[in-house]
Amino acid sequence: MARYGPQFGPDITYLGVDRCDHTDPASMAGADVVVLGAPFDGGTSHRPGTRFGPQAIRMTDYLPHDGSRPSLALRTDGLRDLRVLDAGDVEMYSGDIETALPALRAAVADVVRAGAIPVVLGGDHSIAFPDAGGVADVLGHGRVSMIHFDAHADTGDIEFGSLWGHGQPMRRLIESGALRGDRFLQIGLRGYWPPPETLDWMAAQRMRSYEMTEIGHRGLQTCLTEAFSIATDECDGVFLSVDIDVCDPGHAPGTGTPEPGGLTARELLDSVRRICLELPVVGIDVVEVSPPYDHADITAALANRVVLEALSAIARRRSALPPFDPSLPLLADRNLP
Amino acid sequence: MARYGPQFGPDITYLGVDRCDHTDPASMAGADVVVLGAPFDGGTSHRPGTRFGPQAIRMTDYLPHDGSRPSLALRTDGLRDLRVLDAGDVEMYSGDIETALPALRAAVADVVRAGAIPVVLGGDHSIAFPDAGGVADVLGHGRVSMIHFDAHADTGDIEFGSLWGHGQPMRRLIESGALRGDRFLQIGLRGYWPPPETLDWMAAQRMRSYEMTEIGHRGLQTCLTEAFSIATDECDGVFLSVDIDVCDPGHAPGTGTPEPGGLTARELLDSVRRICLELPVVGIDVVEVSPPYDHADITAALANRVVLEALSAIARRRSALPPFDPSLPLLADRNLP
Amino acid sequence: MARYGPQFGPDITYLGVDRCDHTDPASMAGADVVVLGAPFDGGTSHRPGTRFGPQAIRMTDYLPHDGSRPSLALRTDGLRDLRVLDAGDVEMYSGDIETALPALRAAVADVVRAGAIPVVLGGDHSIAFPDAGGVADVLGHGRVSMIHFDAHADTGDIEFGSLWGHGQPMRRLIESGALRGDRFLQIGLRGYWPPPETLDWMAAQRMRSYEMTEIGHRGLQTCLTEAFSIATDECDGVFLSVDIDVCDPGHAPGTGTPEPGGLTARELLDSVRRICLELPVVGIDVVEVSPPYDHADITAALANRVVLEALSAIARRRSALPPFDPSLPLLADRNLP
Amino acid sequence: MARYGPQFGPDITYLGVDRCDHTDPASMAGADVVVLGAPFDGGTSHRPGTRFGPQAIRMTDYLPHDGSRPSLALRTDGLRDLRVLDAGDVEMYSGDIETALPALRAAVADVVRAGAIPVVLGGDHSIAFPDAGGVADVLGHGRVSMIHFDAHADTGDIEFGSLWGHGQPMRRLIESGALRGDRFLQIGLRGYWPPPETLDWMAAQRMRSYEMTEIGHRGLQTCLTEAFSIATDECDGVFLSVDIDVCDPGHAPGTGTPEPGGLTARELLDSVRRICLELPVVGIDVVEVSPPYDHADITAALANRVVLEALSAIARRRSALPPFDPSLPLLADRNLP
Amino acid sequence: MARYGPQFGPDITYLGVDRCDHTDPASMAGADVVVLGAPFDGGTSHRPGTRFGPQAIRMTDYLPHDGSRPSLALRTDGLRDLRVLDAGDVEMYSGDIETALPALRAAVADVVRAGAIPVVLGGDHSIAFPDAGGVADVLGHGRVSMIHFDAHADTGDIEFGSLWGHGQPMRRLIESGALRGDRFLQIGLRGYWPPPETLDWMAAQRMRSYEMTEIGHRGLQTCLTEAFSIATDECDGVFLSVDIDVCDPGHAPGTGTPEPGGLTARELLDSVRRICLELPVVGIDVVEVSPPYDHADITAALANRVVLEALSAIARRRSALPPFDPSLPLLADRNLP
Amino acid sequence: MARYGPQFGPDITYLGVDRCDHTDPASMAGADVVVLGAPFDGGTSHRPGTRFGPQAIRMTDYLPHDGSRPSLALRTDGLRDLRVLDAGDVEMYSGDIETALPALRAAVADVVRAGAIPVVLGGDHSIAFPDAGGVADVLGHGRVSMIHFDAHADTGDIEFGSLWGHGQPMRRLIESGALRGDRFLQIGLRGYWPPPETLDWMAAQRMRSYEMTEIGHRGLQTCLTEAFSIATDECDGVFLSVDIDVCDPGHAPGTGTPEPGGLTARELLDSVRRICLELPVVGIDVVEVSPPYDHADITAALANRVVLEALSAIARRRSALPPFDPSLPLLADRNLP
Repeated sequence: MARYGPQFGPDITYLGVDRCDHTDPASMAGADVVVLGAPFDGGTSHRPGTRFGPQAIRMTDYLPHDGSRPSLALRTDGLRDLRVLDAGDVEMYSGDIETALPALRAAVADVVRAGAIPVVLGGDHSIAFPDAGGVADVLGHGRVSMIHFDAHADTGDIEFGSLWGHGQPMRRLIESGALRGDRFLQIGLRGYWPPPETLDWMAAQRMRSYEMTEIGHRGLQTCLTEAFSIATDECDGVFLSVDIDVCDPGHAPGTGTPEPGGLTARELLDSVRRICLELPVVGIDVVEVSPPYDHADITAALANRVVLEALSAIARRRSALPPFDPSLPLLADRNLP
Repeated sequence: MARYGPQFGPDITYLGVDRCDHTDPASMAGADVVVLGAPFDGGTSHRPGTRFGPQAIRMTDYLPHDGSRPSLALRTDGLRDLRVLDAGDVEMYSGDIETALPALRAAVADVVRAGAIPVVLGGDHSIAFPDAGGVADVLGHGRVSMIHFDAHADTGDIEFGSLWGHGQPMRRLIESGALRGDRFLQIGLRGYWPPPETLDWMAAQRMRSYEMTEIGHRGLQTCLTEAFSIATDECDGVFLSVDIDVCDPGHAPGTGTPEPGGLTARELLDSVRRICLELPVVGIDVVEVSPPYDHADITAALANRVVLEALSAIARRRSALPPFDPSLPLLADRNLP
Repeated sequence: MARYGPQFGPDITYLGVDRCDHTDPASMAGADVVVLGAPFDGGTSHRPGTRFGPQAIRMTDYLPHDGSRPSLALRTDGLRDLRVLDAGDVEMYSGDIETALPALRAAVADVVRAGAIPVVLGGDHSIAFPDAGGVADVLGHGRVSMIHFDAHADTGDIEFGSLWGHGQPMRRLIESGALRGDRFLQIGLRGYWPPPETLDWMAAQRMRSYEMTEIGHRGLQTCLTEAFSIATDECDGVFLSVDIDVCDPGHAPGTGTPEPGGLTARELLDSVRRICLELPVVGIDVVEVSPPYDHADITAALANRVVLEALSAIARRRSALPPFDPSLPLLADRNLP
Repeated sequence: MARYGPQFGPDITYLGVDRCDHTDPASMAGADVVVLGAPFDGGTSHRPGTRFGPQAIRMTDYLPHDGSRPSLALRTDGLRDLRVLDAGDVEMYSGDIETALPALRAAVADVVRAGAIPVVLGGDHSIAFPDAGGVADVLGHGRVSMIHFDAHADTGDIEFGSLWGHGQPMRRLIESGALRGDRFLQIGLRGYWPPPETLDWMAAQRMRSYEMTEIGHRGLQTCLTEAFSIATDECDGVFLSVDIDVCDPGHAPGTGTPEPGGLTARELLDSVRRICLELPVVGIDVVEVSPPYDHADITAALANRVVLEALSAIARRRSALPPFDPSLPLLADRNLP
Repeated sequence: MARYGPQFGPDITYLGVDRCDHTDPASMAGADVVVLGAPFDGGTSHRPGTRFGPQAIRMTDYLPHDGSRPSLALRTDGLRDLRVLDAGDVEMYSGDIETALPALRAAVADVVRAGAIPVVLGGDHSIAFPDAGGVADVLGHGRVSMIHFDAHADTGDIEFGSLWGHGQPMRRLIESGALRGDRFLQIGLRGYWPPPETLDWMAAQRMRSYEMTEIGHRGLQTCLTEAFSIATDECDGVFLSVDIDVCDPGHAPGTGTPEPGGLTARELLDSVRRICLELPVVGIDVVEVSPPYDHADITAALANRVVLEALSAIARRRSALPPFDPSLPLLADRNLP
Repeated sequence: MARYGPQFGPDITYLGVDRCDHTDPASMAGADVVVLGAPFDGGTSHRPGTRFGPQAIRMTDYLPHDGSRPSLALRTDGLRDLRVLDAGDVEMYSGDIETALPALRAAVADVVRAGAIPVVLGGDHSIAFPDAGGVADVLGHGRVSMIHFDAHADTGDIEFGSLWGHGQPMRRLIESGALRGDRFLQIGLRGYWPPPETLDWMAAQRMRSYEMTEIGHRGLQTCLTEAFSIATDECDGVFLSVDIDVCDPGHAPGTGTPEPGGLTARELLDSVRRICLELPVVGIDVVEVSPPYDHADITAALANRVVLEALSAIARRRSALPPFDPSLPLLADRNLP
């Protein structure tokens, strides 16, 4: 466990699940999911604060931190039907990105080797490079596709004189061969970045990026369905990277580079649900939650729910329950006394 | 009038309507609606602050507090076409829920006996027990149905060692016979509470609960129409209970237990309008507005408008105007000089 | 340039574009667009603070202030494909509206005479009178139509004993003959103002006002299309006035008179895009951004993007690119290496 | 009472005292003190918001609004031992300072003519001109001295092209002859305004201004004692003008032009006590409280207490109690059963 | 450990000290100090929120939560030189003060019986009754004196119809015989409460209350020295109760009933140091920290430091170090290599 | 000028002074003072945000940004009597402290070589190493003493696995020989860091550290006078490093590691004045202002005034005015007409 992590919030686990140590495989035996904190904001180009993201995401919930969360919609308990452990925060010094990222990558790989899905709580989006990279290191370069929710493509080349930062992880993942550009699905892009030459590079990689205009015109469900078919072609697993700024700033003000005109919280939660119900998710990160800019913890609460939605849906996918029917009333078919 | 109420905000009436005294029937003569404040947050399980809700709801409006509000959409003035009075705050000590709730219940019953619709401004949702209970005490147990907007079912049994609290009022209403479980319509539920055994209890009562997944899939209007038909079957009146957390935290951050993924403010206002236009509403409460967690008063402003929308629609329902046509342009058929 | 403007924020230009001086036509030679700041909140009826709006709108962006913003959706760079200059703030003393408004009107007219589109950053909405009036002074009274996004009609007669204020500019524009009432399109009205007698006056002017109920029922796109056909009938140009309170307070909390139930940020941005793509816009103002009531700068960021969306779309309209196709994938038809 | 005042907060009186009407002398019969609200911020040079000051000062108190406040220190009840009434807010349109200030001046004069001390709740400091001017209009020009707590001298000549604003009232008072420059005592000045030529003008008027350096070096009590002797020389009464920014921003953040390095709240309260105990105060204003910039209402609470301290001390001065002894224990000489 | 406590913040211990269980004496073996959380705000008369106080006080510190805090000034490590344990939060339902307070009293007594000093983190001040009462239950009624820092005397009789609340604990302690009125020392009182009849009652009990006027006039050190001599006369131990509102709101905004004109943070810390260095402290509580009203955690940080200052001084008092010399330079007499 | 700096706030100069380029000596010709921005927070151990410090310090002032600030107290205009230029922000990527700090050091040295005093606006305190180091590189290692205002000694060895960070700059300065340990004066230390072994190291260096206890007991003026005599012994110049957290959090909440019990704003300003009046200051930095945690800009305003106080006093020291007399009335000896 990190020595410094608790400095960026209290030393707790995600909603009270058991602790583990990613350097001790025995402690992860039988785990379905292992949570890792990445309290790092050295890669952000604008507002910092995401170093406090992991603990905020872990604890922002009005219910008891008791390691149980039965989903009304999915009828699974993501924290009990799965074995979910929390390995604490990886030590990442925000002033030294070149040391911090590899430390996280090794931790992610530890988790994957233990047979668990890593769920990494950021931290700024520079961590997607070690997150998805660490998964690919174990499952095979080129064998993992990416579904990436974000207002920004994060495919910049060099920023602030560095190859590493929250605007570049997706480029580094593709350039390094860890992920295939043509199995890279981006949802929610908008605004005024990156510039045309970067878009040209993205096109050359055969990335598929859904800007909000297309999503608005064709419909989010249609775009997702199309993306799902690409994601599962010739790939064994899917990495889900959720930058909370994919949501509109009204729904997620506590973030570093807010871009107006995004998804609603409901749309994001429903999308995460579909992905984890329908696709073989092998890794997740939830990034760019910056508590100093949050109000009444609404952004942290949303990120907490993104994680829970994912866990609940993975549990459902792995359960013996019938296929999920979104039109079923809440109380249909309950056990009656 | 309460002695301590003004301690939780200035001693004013809702948008400047006239005062009355619920213990003095003469003062309520001819009233269509009587506003009551319930400055109580002793029943909340997480963030308090709703004791400041009643005064915030009464005063958060950028227009003069002049006792008039002509609705653009409905072409009625809810504060003038109806006789609306404000009986001030009921004295409710947050440290003593067992004394506070009966005091409110008696006040609500006073209002109903005077022939007026009580509109109770909360306060946390534990007040729904005395609110709807007080109405049923006068109109008859089992004769009033409930339409309940909320992220949470509020059907818990014992919490914090107590039968009384903001997670349990709906169970107590049904158990006590005041309301029928099979005339209990819940809109907007989501998230991770209550647990399955409580859902089983709810199913056994034949409650009808619309979780956000069903609402998203079938459409809010369809769900409402279905709910309306249940609500009016074998019941004489409808109690409308609006927990502001039915809205997404982006629209209503100032609340105690925010659950991401809710309705928009527009959806809530439109739903309240339809209910008050189409159904025989006999009581209303608007709860869980917590000013300390609000920003720029947007949650209090929304609650203020929920009340006004209800009043405007009740006025329209009681007016001689033709049926409401939502496609009519604003300026159609105006009096021209 | 104003002597006092920098007192209401730092002395910068909109996202780093070049400066000009509206009193010096040579400095505006070749300009397509000239930004003007109107740091004035003397006309507001409730919360002040919009005097800090112009600088907040100019600088709220997480990208470098480098005078370039390539739009992902529109494939134009509104700051480079157009020649955009910033003339700084007009000196407007909030305590003296009768001096302040004419000063702004003269500045706007200077810009129009120079052949540029004025984009005025407010300030409260009282500035719409000099903004649209100044345009009409040059292009001809009765020759410019108005598309007005707002929660409020702003057609009051006398408020606070004055003819001038943020609730009255639209009445003054029509009464003065600068704009035609029957070419006045209002989008997003809702709530409880103005009163019926003012609506009668509006009807008598043959204004066309789309209240949110009609928009919700008929669809925003339908209403916009209808409005566009009116706006271009017998008029040479369109003035676009965007009161940020047309958006729901959840999306735009930092404003003076927030009215729940409005548009989403996405809807506003898409609407502004359509207007500037499809209509001959001759002037724009973006008003009622009040930074003291904002949170994490989300309202200022939205206003900044409203301006950029308009500029990007104007650039597209003036470009040789094919007609805009909203279903086109982001990376379709890029230059490949 | 003002028609628009309640728009800037609820329509209440200072801590629940009785209402009066300054245009109706009978309503003020027997009054010792009459509170007036001046909800005006049209004269501020930087952050506005003081229009919400009067209601914030009236209501920010955690005790019941019951018209009673027994001072622990002074053993008087300023609201009961004196007859204190509240005449509500004067209608002052922030966009028209030239109309607004005379309206306030007339109201202040009404109060003085009724034999009461006016306590004016601002509002920005431009109201000091009508406040002290209105007192002098009745008691005689040149017969009232001024004790002025402020970070700023407020002796500017023309600002923003106007003679009227919050930086100039003291100059206008002296120039107009209402107050004598050599009976003008300023406490707490600091910082970087006004410029030398204005200081020269002040010196020429023989004003006595205590900058914080002198106060720190010689001691606040010494400075006050010296000032008191000047204030009472050849004058019949003293006007006390308290700009809340005389306090350090740590104690009073909610203000328009905060200057670091000021008095503590304790020092201000003790100074106000001494003035009202020892001098014949004939008028008071408390200005520059800007609620939008306040946190947890601490600035409004301080202003509320400045008023109460003044009233308690005036009551003590008028009482039959022995001279105030600050070393007396709280419980000394109490009535024992 | 409480079942519900973690709902009011993460389940952590004070700065990372070891946990214990107050119902299990063995777990407290050898403890010098046991921390208890009292997440209760049902007794507050105004702003709630102190239920979140215990966890905020436990975790608000920028240093690692590592169970060590070497005091620069006192040269002791309060968390290591003493054996400090944390028994977690007592379950206290804010809606039921009559059940909650006895539960806390029993827990406090458990700690005292185990030979440790209880340090209770509030919570509102109603907990002082069980805190000091629980200590007296074990050490003997009338054998413990009280030093009470507060803006308010907290000696009310019945408020909101109840004997129990944050304005009455001191009266109940004296009336019940747990503490002697003539060994009750109050520091920092000010403002306008309680009323004269309550002061008469206090005088009759021979309480000694230092109002801020006396403190300002005679000096804080003088008053403290005098109080110390009373506190140790015929008593075996001293209970220290610190209401954070004894500080000025500028230093402690996050509290329920802020009264301007209080101590500085420095004065409070120095006073707590002297008390714990010079007197036989047998119990401590730190109350009225309300995180929803705090800014940048400054109030919680102050309360965290009040606890640390007390622990450091107790450690010093129990150490073999020479008498504390406040004029000694920090680096005097250090171990040199 | 930096390419990325304007991303962390608008591209402005300190209060409107002229720009220069530190890489172009000609642009600095004749400069007395050159301001440099260090928008870096990669070295902070807790709350980030100081990257926005430089622009906040430059622009937080309610007066026009006109390059003039006549000091009331000192009777000099620090921006006019001196030639003050602003070289903009040095490009410092927060994710790469090992590249960022040398870049700043080179810039500081450029300024010193040009004969000007560098005033560096931080940024976190890790910049003190390049700030004072850059000065010593030019003026001579061991020839510059340090007066260091801070709650923390900043003499840590390795933190987060790095030699570089905001807790270690003072150790690195001494270890590297740039500054002498026995000419290192620290004012305002308090709290619980560093641990004893670090204090031993400090003692071994013969540093002189004034903890708040000593300051409170002996008096700040006495301590300063003593420190001044050390600082000028065998040194040619003094570097003044002001960590804003030397002030109490009530006066400076917007900082990364707030420690209760500090100086008042007034005490800091007076101390800075004395230093710059009495000592040969050759470099200044003002650090640890973190705008995301500030309220109403009070911390930024204080830092702005720290800079102005220093400049005003340097101007006074260099002027022909008589020795500064703090007891002189403000208006004494003014030019009369």
